Amino acid sequence: MTENSRPLDLLNSAKGKTVLIELKNGRSITGKLIAFDVHINVTLENSEEKQNGDTLRKLGNVFIRGDTIILISPTV
Amino acid sequence: MTENSRPLDLLNSAKGKTVLIELKNGRSITGKLIAFDVHINVTLENSEEKQNGDTLRKLGNVFIRGDTIILISPTV
Amino acid sequence: MTENSRPLDLLNSAKGKTVLIELKNGRSITGKLIAFDVHINVTLENSEEKQNGDTLRKLGNVFIRGDTIILISPTV
Amino acid sequence: MTENSRPLDLLNSAKGKTVLIELKNGRSITGKLIAFDVHINVTLENSEEKQNGDTLRKLGNVFIRGDTIILISPTV
Amino acid sequence: MTENSRPLDLLNSAKGKTVLIELKNGRSITGKLIAFDVHINVTLENSEEKQNGDTLRKLGNVFIRGDTIILISPTV
Amino acid sequence: MTENSRPLDLLNSAKGKTVLIELKNGRSITGKLIAFDVHINVTLENSEEKQNGDTLRKLGNVFIRGDTIILISPTV
Amino acid sequence: MTENSRPLDLLNSAKGKTVLIELKNGRSITGKLIAFDVHINVTLENSEEKQNGDTLRKLGNVFIRGDTIILISPTV
Repeated sequence: MTENSRPLDLLNSAKGKTVLIELKNGRSITGKLIAFDVHINVTLENSEEKQNGDTLRKLGNVFIRGDTIILISPTV
Repeated sequence: MTENSRPLDLLNSAKGKTVLIELKNGRSITGKLIAFDVHINVTLENSEEKQNGDTLRKLGNVFIRGDTIILISPTV
Repeated sequence: MTENSRPLDLLNSAKGKTVLIELKNGRSITGKLIAFDVHINVTLENSEEKQNGDTLRKLGNVFIRGDTIILISPTV
Repeated sequence: MTENSRPLDLLNSAKGKTVLIELKNGRSITGKLIAFDVHINVTLENSEEKQNGDTLRKLGNVFIRGDTIILISPTV
Repeated sequence: MTENSRPLDLLNSAKGKTVLIELKNGRSITGKLIAFDVHINVTLENSEEKQNGDTLRKLGNVFIRGDTIILISPTV
Repeated sequence: MTENSRPLDLLNSAKGKTVLIELKNGRSITGKLIAFDVHINVTLENSEEKQNGDTLRKLGNVFIRGDTIILISPTV
Repeated sequence: MTENSRPLDLLNSAKGKTVLIELKNGRSITGKLIAFDVHINVTLENSEEKQNGDTLRKLGNVFIRGDTIILISPTV
C-alpha cells in the first residue's frame, strides 16, 4: 500500500472476496463483499453468521447498515 | 452483481419481495419491501415480528426508522 | 403502493388515522397522527401509552422526537 | 390541526404553557415552555423534576438539550 | 422572556453566573458559566463536581463537551 | 475571560500544558495538550491513564477521538 | 510538535508504524497504520487483537470504522 492510500482502498481491493464483518452487537458475519459506500453500508453474497468458527445460520444476500459495523477484515 | 454495484442496489432488487429485517433491539421483522430511502428508513407490507421462525404478532403496514436497523436480507 | 413509493408515503397516508409508535426505550404509544417531518419527529392527538393492549396512561397531544422511534404502524 | 401542520406547530402552540418533558434517562420535568429550536433544545421556567406526580426537586429556569428528550406533552 | 426568545437566550443571560450542569453519566457539575457554543460545548470557572449538595472534588476551569449534557440550570 | 469568549478558547490557552481528560467509558487520561480540532479530537504527549491519582499505565503520544470525551480540565 | 499542529498530524506521522487502537467495546487492536480519513476510519496491516499484552487472534488486514475508536497510540 502506498503513502497516499485511503481506508476505503482496502475495501475496494476486497470486492469479490470473502470478508469477516464484526458488528457492535457482538455478532460476526462472513460473505463475499459485493458493494460498500461512504457510510460503510455493505452488501454481501453467500453470507453466514459465525460464532467461534462455526456457522450459526446462512443469510445469503444481505445489506448491513454501516453504523452497526466495528471492523471488516478480508479473510485469506 | 457488477463491479460497480452499490449497497442500495440489493435493496432496490428486493422491492416487492419478502425481506428479513433485524433491529438493534434484537427483534426481527419480515414483510414485503415497499420502499426505502438513503437513511435506510423502510416501509413493509404484511409485516410480522418473528422469533425463531415463529410469528410473535402481525404488524401489517409498518414504517421502520433506518437508524434502528442492523441488516436487511431478502428471503428466498 | 407503486414502484416509486418512498417510506414517508406510508406516514402521509396515515395522517389523521390512529398509529402505533414503538420507542427505543421499549414503550408503545398510540394516537391520531397529526404531523411528521424528515427527522420522523411526530405529533399525535389523543395519545395513550399502551402495554399489552392496556392503556397505562393518557398523554393527549404529544410531540415525539424522531430519534427515539423504532417503528410506526397504522392500526386498522 | 390542519392537513399541512408540522410537528413543531404543537410546540409553538404550547409556548407560555406548562408542558411535561420525558427524558431518555427516565426522568420527567414539567415547566412553562419558553423557547425551543429545531434541535428540540428547550428552555422552561418554574421547572420541577417529577416522579409519579410528586415533585422531586425544583429546577427553576432550565435549558434541556434536545437529544436527551423523548417526548413533550402540553399538560391541560 | 419574550414571544421570540430562543433556548440559547437562557444560556446567554447566565454568562458570568453560577450554573448547575447535569451530565448523561449521572454526574452534576457547578461553576461559573464562561462560554458556550451551538453544540452546547461549555466552559466553566471554579467548577466542582457535586453529589446531593456536597462537593466531591474541585475541577477549576473545565471544558464540557456538549453531547454529554442533559440540562443546564442557572442557580439562584 | 471576556464577554465574547468561546469554549475552545479554554483549550487554546491550555495548549502545551497538562490537562485531565475524562472519557465516556469512565477512564481518565492526563498529558500535555498538543492539538485539538472542532470535533474535540485531541492529541496528548506524555499521556498516562489515571485512577484515583495513581498511574495505571503510560500511553505516551495519543490521539483521542472527540466523541468519547466528557470533559477536559487544565491541571494546575 | 508546533504551535499550529492538528490532531491528525499525530496519525500522519504514525503511518507505516505500529499503533495501538482501543475500541469502545473494550477491545484493543495493534497493527501497522496504513491509512485513515477525517472520520478516523482506519486500516491496519498485520493487525492482532490484544489482551493484557497477549495476542488473542491475528486479523491481518483490517478496516476499523472510526466511530468505534476511543484512542490511537503509536507504540514505541
